[in-house]
Amino acid sequence: MATPKGSFSLHPQLAADTIPVGDLSLSRVLLAKDANYPWLILVPKRPDLTEIFDLPEQEQDRLFGEIRQAASALKSVTTCDKLNIAAIGNVVSQLHVHIVARRKTDAAWPRPIWGAVPSITYAPDIRDGLIAALRNALPVVP
Amino acid sequence: MATPKGSFSLHPQLAADTIPVGDLSLSRVLLAKDANYPWLILVPKRPDLTEIFDLPEQEQDRLFGEIRQAASALKSVTTCDKLNIAAIGNVVSQLHVHIVARRKTDAAWPRPIWGAVPSITYAPDIRDGLIAALRNALPVVP
Repeated sequence: MATPKGSFSLHPQLAADTIPVGDLSLSRVLLAKDANYPWLILVPKRPDLTEIFDLPEQEQDRLFGEIRQAASALKSVTTCDKLNIAAIGNVVSQLHVHIVARRKTDAAWPRPIWGAVPSITYAPDIRDGLIAALRNALPVVP
Repeated sequence: MATPKGSFSLHPQLAADTIPVGDLSLSRVLLAKDANYPWLILVPKRPDLTEIFDLPEQEQDRLFGEIRQAASALKSVTTCDKLNIAAIGNVVSQLHVHIVARRKTDAAWPRPIWGAVPSITYAPDIRDGLIAALRNALPVVP
């Protein structure tokens, strides 16, 4: 299905690898389908973005506020030792920000998670519980 | 040498792995000693920080502004295809933010850089030229 030019559309790879949590005012909040770590991905709902600095300055500030909200929510609903926050985008160029709750006992610790270990499928009840807790902790709309 | 409690001191590992570019109002700007990629590290000059969210909210905004300044300067003085920006800190817990200029031809592309390939020593003239260009592009004091 063609996307109208200039309108936001989630990159198919991001869509395949995640479950939607809901939308903040600027960003779509996604949960990565990897039970190794509670892992959120924020995608600003604007077309044709690659770098944070492609956003108008005011929206960069809004994005930073939403990163803060999402990181705080993730920390509040998980037991974690460290947050990892990153905008990389070397493979999927659509601007997206990773927020990962790391534990000293997780499979990749202390390495960064990208490419470190194969992903693990969530048990459905764990996944649904985490999504419900995140929806409760964040002002998202479905 | 003992550091007075409650005062800022750069973590010895960060000091060993970098060359100082200069100080912005909140952050110390460092160049990583790895010629694989032009790679800055920003360290807010505040004691006892691990997460961005340990900073007072106003200083988080200042840090974000300085990340923006440093990323823009790094992009302006290098030829790069993508910026990678990350706060990880699983090994060195002192809060620090990586800003890396990536090229599609660099040794680790498209993987994230951390732990990807052994670091390479800079040729002194290349290193000094890069530092001079960064000092010119950023409002740092030595």
